[in-house]
Amino acid sequence: MLIVQKFGGSSVANPDRIVNVAKRVALTRREGHRVVVVVSALGDTTDDLIELSRKVTRNPVEREMDMLMATGEQVSVALLAMAIQELGIPAISFTGAQVGIVTDSSHTRAKIKNISGQRISEQLKRGKVVVVAGFQGMTEDHEITTLGRGGSDLSAVALAVALKAQVCEIYTDVEGVYTTDPRIVPEARKLESVSYDEMLEMASLGAQVMQARSMEVAKKYSIPIHVRSSFSKQPGTIISKEVKSMEDVVVRGVSLAKEEAKVTICDVPDKPGLAAKIFTRISEANINVDTIVQNVSKTGTTDLSFTVGLPDLNKTLTVARKVAREVRAKGVTYDDKIAKVSVVGIGMRSHSGIAAKMFQALAKESINIEMISTSEIKISCVIGKNQAVRAVRALHKAFGLNRLGRKTQLALVR
Amino acid sequence: MLIVQKFGGSSVANPDRIVNVAKRVALTRREGHRVVVVVSALGDTTDDLIELSRKVTRNPVEREMDMLMATGEQVSVALLAMAIQELGIPAISFTGAQVGIVTDSSHTRAKIKNISGQRISEQLKRGKVVVVAGFQGMTEDHEITTLGRGGSDLSAVALAVALKAQVCEIYTDVEGVYTTDPRIVPEARKLESVSYDEMLEMASLGAQVMQARSMEVAKKYSIPIHVRSSFSKQPGTIISKEVKSMEDVVVRGVSLAKEEAKVTICDVPDKPGLAAKIFTRISEANINVDTIVQNVSKTGTTDLSFTVGLPDLNKTLTVARKVAREVRAKGVTYDDKIAKVSVVGIGMRSHSGIAAKMFQALAKESINIEMISTSEIKISCVIGKNQAVRAVRALHKAFGLNRLGRKTQLALVR
Repeated sequence: MLIVQKFGGSSVANPDRIVNVAKRVALTRREGHRVVVVVSALGDTTDDLIELSRKVTRNPVEREMDMLMATGEQVSVALLAMAIQELGIPAISFTGAQVGIVTDSSHTRAKIKNISGQRISEQLKRGKVVVVAGFQGMTEDHEITTLGRGGSDLSAVALAVALKAQVCEIYTDVEGVYTTDPRIVPEARKLESVSYDEMLEMASLGAQVMQARSMEVAKKYSIPIHVRSSFSKQPGTIISKEVKSMEDVVVRGVSLAKEEAKVTICDVPDKPGLAAKIFTRISEANINVDTIVQNVSKTGTTDLSFTVGLPDLNKTLTVARKVAREVRAKGVTYDDKIAKVSVVGIGMRSHSGIAAKMFQALAKESINIEMISTSEIKISCVIGKNQAVRAVRALHKAFGLNRLGRKTQLALVR
Repeated sequence: MLIVQKFGGSSVANPDRIVNVAKRVALTRREGHRVVVVVSALGDTTDDLIELSRKVTRNPVEREMDMLMATGEQVSVALLAMAIQELGIPAISFTGAQVGIVTDSSHTRAKIKNISGQRISEQLKRGKVVVVAGFQGMTEDHEITTLGRGGSDLSAVALAVALKAQVCEIYTDVEGVYTTDPRIVPEARKLESVSYDEMLEMASLGAQVMQARSMEVAKKYSIPIHVRSSFSKQPGTIISKEVKSMEDVVVRGVSLAKEEAKVTICDVPDKPGLAAKIFTRISEANINVDTIVQNVSKTGTTDLSFTVGLPDLNKTLTVARKVAREVRAKGVTYDDKIAKVSVVGIGMRSHSGIAAKMFQALAKESINIEMISTSEIKISCVIGKNQAVRAVRALHKAFGLNRLGRKTQLALVR
């Protein structure tokens, strides 16, 4: 079997942990599998490098940031290859550029265009464990690029696709994917399996086990993902295509996103094209808008509300105030004390009444809902941040997640 | 003018110093010159990385050591390029691999085979300062290699050759090349100029301003080297071809090497071929032998003495004891309390009596000479280590270096 194993920064934070990862890899190799390992930078290396760059410049050029940051993973792969060899297993390390992970030229957030798996395959044939630097690639002009936060997940999944691996194992510091954050709800349970779509909703809703882009790629090419702990040998959670046994589950998990803010443009004249104008401006500023709510009132104007990530709030307000003047809206208000709580489950597609049940559960706790948005397999409510924990606990209980068996639950994660 | 500027690790040891280097580079660029900058890793980075590798393995594979160590210079070039850009000067950084510094595959001590200067020339034409990672290259198979200690000097000189630069400036933490180590002889003076050959002898005799291999390349292609301080704007020392004004100088400097040991194989039978056998074995063990002295006695046996670097002493003794048994020599003795003091100068070629004058000066100080060796432009004496400082001072004075003008002196260096 060909297995891609990905270890994040906390799994290789120091030499002892690197040796532990090496033992884990050696074990898999000794079981007869061919192994490709993808590693992130040691611990906080990437943040340290960013910090270092800030000491020489206020506005680092992104190309040079990539040059700088790519060194983090290069250190990891060299050390891990040495540690594996120390255990008597032949191993060889490569940078993203060396194995032909070709990306576009959007430095610091490059997209993978293609991967030439040839160099890796050659080394696998020679019986070697191949250790590849995550998070990085190169353009067709041999410029070093990085893939953005969580990019090592994407490297791992993309390599699994290119090499036709049987499974992509994502090692992390949690045991797998849970019905909700176990720090909030002690009754939360680890799921044995979850579908790509459910995991995608969870990822985009703030669950941090896996980067959303990597999940999309895994889904597109049907690569099974095994999320598991690097500190234990217990099986974790398998993420794969929708499977039969999942069908009867209505809600698989409850997720919470706390790092958001709500922005409202007040009294926007109710004319065609104004919403388009507003959101074009915002997207031109590279701001990612999440939930959007608009309710036309009877006075000929409307309040237009949307949520953005907290780090983008200031930038958003600047753009929103400018565009508000242009469209002759009354003004801009914001609320940075909000949270978004969501229930997710493939079963919702064919079940009615889930929304009603959710709203009832929140009402019983006297929690006011500020915004609502829905997708095929998810319902999200924006509420006050100070009510978030109570909301998650109430929903986890209301949808019977506390009581259900392991197989029929889903996922938020620390 | 096209200038290659090389800055060592101490010149870029922290963000403040990197900014200073950037200012220095910007100044040269603003004077209208085209500038290629070669940088070493920040401060002690290389040693730190070696230390890190020792925590995961006792015997790091050299290929992986190169992968690891090459990150040091990559960090430097990215930061320096950012710092230069911060000053409003366009700059771009490259790894050794990216600019096509092609080497053989002797990892950790690779030799440069050729350099494709094309990518650098393109960027220079666009008005950019080009910042290149020193100490590293790649094989024709795109494997990352490093050039060994002092390799950044070699990168700089080789780039100067490939790009046909007018001068290669080596920035360091001393003001230039001195008649001898100023810490030993306060009267030592900075030289305005010195020849490649003299500098080569100094480098191989323990002076540390520049790596010997890079000096050989500079000589071969007649690239003038300007050794100068990164902390002052004073001119330093120009290393170039032998020039007329040097001819009348007999001794240009006094150098000292303290990290050596003497090994003697006692009572070797005086038969043809035994010396060859002994030194073949030693070279097979990758030990670099320096001075060799043999004196056949009348009893049909001879004592064979030679010096090696102190770090190689144990390895040498193992080999020497084994080969001594094979050739039926009596045994092996050693002395690790020796030093080698040398006088160097192109003028020696045509002057007799230099050796006699040297021996007299040492005798006057009651310093016993254990071994003597000579080249065309150098005489070296092995003496007791505890007499080394006295010997250097006596020779510096005896050859009139204390009194001579700046132009007529040479070179050992801290």
